[in-house]
Amino acid sequence: MGVLGASGYGGAELLRLLKAHPGVELVGFSSRKYEGKPLSSAWPQLWDERPFIPQEEVLERAEVVFLALPNGLAMGIVPEVLKAGKRAIDLSGDFRLPPGVYEAWYGIPHKSPELYAEAVYGLPELHREELKGARLVANPGCYVTAATLALAPLAAEGVLKGAFVVGLSGVSGAGREGEGTFFAEVNENLKPYKAGGTHRHIPEMEQNLGRLLAQGRRARTHGEAKAVRLSFTPHLVPMTRGILITAEAEVEGGWDQEALNTLYRDFYAQEPFVRVVEGLPETKGTLGSNRVDLKPLYEERTGRVLVFAALDNLVKGMAGQAVQNFNLMMGFSEETALPKEGLWP
Amino acid sequence: MGVLGASGYGGAELLRLLKAHPGVELVGFSSRKYEGKPLSSAWPQLWDERPFIPQEEVLERAEVVFLALPNGLAMGIVPEVLKAGKRAIDLSGDFRLPPGVYEAWYGIPHKSPELYAEAVYGLPELHREELKGARLVANPGCYVTAATLALAPLAAEGVLKGAFVVGLSGVSGAGREGEGTFFAEVNENLKPYKAGGTHRHIPEMEQNLGRLLAQGRRARTHGEAKAVRLSFTPHLVPMTRGILITAEAEVEGGWDQEALNTLYRDFYAQEPFVRVVEGLPETKGTLGSNRVDLKPLYEERTGRVLVFAALDNLVKGMAGQAVQNFNLMMGFSEETALPKEGLWP
Amino acid sequence: MGVLGASGYGGAELLRLLKAHPGVELVGFSSRKYEGKPLSSAWPQLWDERPFIPQEEVLERAEVVFLALPNGLAMGIVPEVLKAGKRAIDLSGDFRLPPGVYEAWYGIPHKSPELYAEAVYGLPELHREELKGARLVANPGCYVTAATLALAPLAAEGVLKGAFVVGLSGVSGAGREGEGTFFAEVNENLKPYKAGGTHRHIPEMEQNLGRLLAQGRRARTHGEAKAVRLSFTPHLVPMTRGILITAEAEVEGGWDQEALNTLYRDFYAQEPFVRVVEGLPETKGTLGSNRVDLKPLYEERTGRVLVFAALDNLVKGMAGQAVQNFNLMMGFSEETALPKEGLWP
Amino acid sequence: MGVLGASGYGGAELLRLLKAHPGVELVGFSSRKYEGKPLSSAWPQLWDERPFIPQEEVLERAEVVFLALPNGLAMGIVPEVLKAGKRAIDLSGDFRLPPGVYEAWYGIPHKSPELYAEAVYGLPELHREELKGARLVANPGCYVTAATLALAPLAAEGVLKGAFVVGLSGVSGAGREGEGTFFAEVNENLKPYKAGGTHRHIPEMEQNLGRLLAQGRRARTHGEAKAVRLSFTPHLVPMTRGILITAEAEVEGGWDQEALNTLYRDFYAQEPFVRVVEGLPETKGTLGSNRVDLKPLYEERTGRVLVFAALDNLVKGMAGQAVQNFNLMMGFSEETALPKEGLWP
Repeated sequence: MGVLGASGYGGAELLRLLKAHPGVELVGFSSRKYEGKPLSSAWPQLWDERPFIPQEEVLERAEVVFLALPNGLAMGIVPEVLKAGKRAIDLSGDFRLPPGVYEAWYGIPHKSPELYAEAVYGLPELHREELKGARLVANPGCYVTAATLALAPLAAEGVLKGAFVVGLSGVSGAGREGEGTFFAEVNENLKPYKAGGTHRHIPEMEQNLGRLLAQGRRARTHGEAKAVRLSFTPHLVPMTRGILITAEAEVEGGWDQEALNTLYRDFYAQEPFVRVVEGLPETKGTLGSNRVDLKPLYEERTGRVLVFAALDNLVKGMAGQAVQNFNLMMGFSEETALPKEGLWP
Repeated sequence: MGVLGASGYGGAELLRLLKAHPGVELVGFSSRKYEGKPLSSAWPQLWDERPFIPQEEVLERAEVVFLALPNGLAMGIVPEVLKAGKRAIDLSGDFRLPPGVYEAWYGIPHKSPELYAEAVYGLPELHREELKGARLVANPGCYVTAATLALAPLAAEGVLKGAFVVGLSGVSGAGREGEGTFFAEVNENLKPYKAGGTHRHIPEMEQNLGRLLAQGRRARTHGEAKAVRLSFTPHLVPMTRGILITAEAEVEGGWDQEALNTLYRDFYAQEPFVRVVEGLPETKGTLGSNRVDLKPLYEERTGRVLVFAALDNLVKGMAGQAVQNFNLMMGFSEETALPKEGLWP
Repeated sequence: MGVLGASGYGGAELLRLLKAHPGVELVGFSSRKYEGKPLSSAWPQLWDERPFIPQEEVLERAEVVFLALPNGLAMGIVPEVLKAGKRAIDLSGDFRLPPGVYEAWYGIPHKSPELYAEAVYGLPELHREELKGARLVANPGCYVTAATLALAPLAAEGVLKGAFVVGLSGVSGAGREGEGTFFAEVNENLKPYKAGGTHRHIPEMEQNLGRLLAQGRRARTHGEAKAVRLSFTPHLVPMTRGILITAEAEVEGGWDQEALNTLYRDFYAQEPFVRVVEGLPETKGTLGSNRVDLKPLYEERTGRVLVFAALDNLVKGMAGQAVQNFNLMMGFSEETALPKEGLWP
Repeated sequence: MGVLGASGYGGAELLRLLKAHPGVELVGFSSRKYEGKPLSSAWPQLWDERPFIPQEEVLERAEVVFLALPNGLAMGIVPEVLKAGKRAIDLSGDFRLPPGVYEAWYGIPHKSPELYAEAVYGLPELHREELKGARLVANPGCYVTAATLALAPLAAEGVLKGAFVVGLSGVSGAGREGEGTFFAEVNENLKPYKAGGTHRHIPEMEQNLGRLLAQGRRARTHGEAKAVRLSFTPHLVPMTRGILITAEAEVEGGWDQEALNTLYRDFYAQEPFVRVVEGLPETKGTLGSNRVDLKPLYEERTGRVLVFAALDNLVKGMAGQAVQNFNLMMGFSEETALPKEGLWP
């Protein structure tokens, strides 16, 4: 097993989790910036003097490759991985959307559109069966994972008409040395960004919920989808990890708190990493864990349904989910090497 | 001029601003906890050895009294202030709502319901003329100020049908030693609270916007109001000062970005403390100032209007607004002692 | 195995670590405040509905008891634990100092002075052999662990004459809801406290270093100690976890950087949780791990030796060290259930 | 009056303070990056649409020029300012040290060594008389201001033998977009940097204290200095503004707390911006103000003197001090436009 892009935050979390995975050997990791240097030179938290090696060597040595690279790179690497009879888990957006939609929202010409049909969408709560034995997984990101899991029960039930989704994210979501993330201008500050329907995770949220609306609970990656219009407004919050989704959903039919509780508890009853909480979720409760905390709330004054979802954007929203997909793909127990409980405080 | 409740955050900001006010003398300030002790013992930022004095002495000495006390106390003090021919600016919720509504949402029996008719609602952007010469001002709080100013142009135009309002607040809004505001459990954390239509600032937001809908731009404090249903979901953000309102408004008629820009710029063209910004507001830009930064955004995908409003909850959302009201009430220039520009970083 | 005081931060970390310990069963945990309530009601990060049980039940069920209680309580409980043939790991200060010294610095009369001779001082790097099979362990705290490990090589070498030690700590060191740890007054703030030689960890640091000076590297818990005078000045830093010790040591003999490197690397060569780093330690690099990062630096201008030590105060400075001691005491591999690598960012 | 380098943090603070200065006109400000753009495009806190203009225009229009530029630039600009009969306040290091010392520590060849004799060192508490009417002021930075004021009374008394100085700084000291100051790697982190006697503010601290030792309280900028050896270890603290100096001084003679109190209170009795506090200083107490809070503490166990000094690094440690010097230079009241009290919380 190998990791490309091991000097980014997603890569670091993959290393942290995979190093504790029994029965898996980390055969190599790459980073253009740190090539030849020891792991500890890139990451103060790791006590490991093995060097970053060239990407080609990782590809040669590994049977499964995690690609934690910027958008647009995996599409050039995955074809050779699959051709060599190996498997790939892509943490970027390259294989999450139909190539035409991808090109429209990401502004990047797609180099391997033929592989989209092969890619399984890596949200285990919705696509567990398809993931078993998959060769290529398109691992979703933090906002989409949280928003999809928040609204999935309503969509699968066929009652979701639309939603106003507010995303609140810590700065690690912008990556290492992310633009506009200097401490002096982030701490004690709070701001919306990419508001007004311009964030490129919108079509992915709509695709996920639209499939559930069209196909119900057993929706498949490449199946039919109904149209669903979401408003999505992300904000940058002065914290490092954690995202919270606050969604106001317009729903059909008559609902009350008890019916919502039952819907959500039943929907997620067998899920190892989704908890429907009594109170209201808080991001810190998921720190370092692969857990999502969810809460639906019926708002009598407006007849709308509020749903809150909290997760650690680098774990369930990124590397942890990739490991969960890896476990399913390779036949390991799904929970292997994935903490359900986090650090506090 | 005197301050009751000078050992809370609102009191501290009042002292900071009023000490720099030319032509006003701070004749006394009280706090049960610090009575007899010097100001510097309560506040490390103040270099002032004058002692806190008993409340009665402040009331005796001052011609205008600022009441920065917990809800339910001002209603017992204001009658004697007015009887003595003096004036009062109340920073609590006691005189903001009709007594019956107040009792229903605050759970406190009202001791001076007859004074509600006398109280002018202290939002200068909407009630400037009434504030001139007022004897009793009901100074609104941070969430209500921000949400009202965010949606007022749409309401005064008569097109506001409803809104999903998300409130994001730093912890100083909970007061000094506020419950659940320990650093170890707030830093790197984010959580909703009082969700589902239970926050007591909701009726006040609805009252303000309902009056504008019914009466238009020249709405008066005690005039008629139309019903408007808001959803309001507050969140605690790991920062000390600053609030951001993110609202999604449902509006009548056909709008686009340019029409919105014109509406908002015209509405606030003469306001000394409201700025309609080009980009998106951020809370830190208002730190320590009495300014509100606003931005309306037309969202084509949904046909809704997003509005963002940022302000410093202890200044424009509390003490600064009280000083602005004081200036109007006493005939000072409205901008006296009130910075429009803040600290950065 | 059971935990007393499971609703404090030390208790929470013990639960996190022990739940992942293979071959150990957590048979009960207590907290006066949460008795009868599920674990998840006290801790948002834990997904565990088992209830807190009365202290007596924990003592009855457990073969090894971790006491994460305020100072002064363990001394009343440990006698019965030992009498019942069980073992105890005390995370408080009760058994770290000779009873007379304890009473002088803690202002608490000692109820079980006779047990001091039995207690092994729980710093594995200095007392590994004594800890194997110990019945009672006095687990040291964060400042003392860091300061002792920072200066131990110089003391064991016999060259340490004295040191100016500056301690910098996140607020979790003050415990849950610790006095003066409200977010609004901690964030963007930094302050010294208990300065001028009044902090009660001073005699413990002097005892540890004095024993090394007198007995050398193989110092034993109750052996002879030489006098060494330290200045210790703690500070509260606006962060949750992590402490850094910055010490300026006055040393005998001629030193240079290379000699220091050799001394420190040799001293800690076999230690599983102590890393001598190339650059300068930073606290975040140890987050959630049981690792200490150390760096000695020879300062030519003054002829002094600077030493920096960083650790996670709740892990190596508290619960992780307790688990390390437990492993030694019970014959488990010392590293069991203890991460050497932390979370980043 | 004009400002060069108005898009850095020092520049922003200068604008904030000078815009509120009565009787001074801000005739222009420059920034290469923002030239031609409005002030509000660089600074969200400022409501000012005047454009940044070319540096030459500022120099032409202004009678007094504040230079808030990186080290090495002022030395090329100041000669023409002075030649034109104008005055300069330089916030960089260019004129603080004898040119040879400067070159050795800064690694920059000095272009105007002849002007060093002309420059008055801009610490009003030590050089007030020289500053009146000065043509060129070398404005000291945050660490040096705090460390010098902390130890000045001991040096002027002739008893200071040496000191171990620990500096703790918020990240704004590293400037806008300072290296290594990304939120995700600064928050919840704490680290030393440039340790071991390599920080270039060391010779400046030694020069200031050495002059006081040699000349006593009335020391002059270019007078004789005695050698004094300091150890200085700076740390980066996860906060934006504020620095704290914690110094352990070795002193001659017999001291106790009362004698120290008297020494410090007398030394600073007439100073408008220096407060000797009862308790221990905290950085947040100075936020946004030009005040320094100081505390000497006699440590009986070691016979050493601890001194703590807290200030806002961008005000008294930078722009506020520059305005204080400007006031002295131009004959304004020294306190004009300079708050002594800050924001809290």
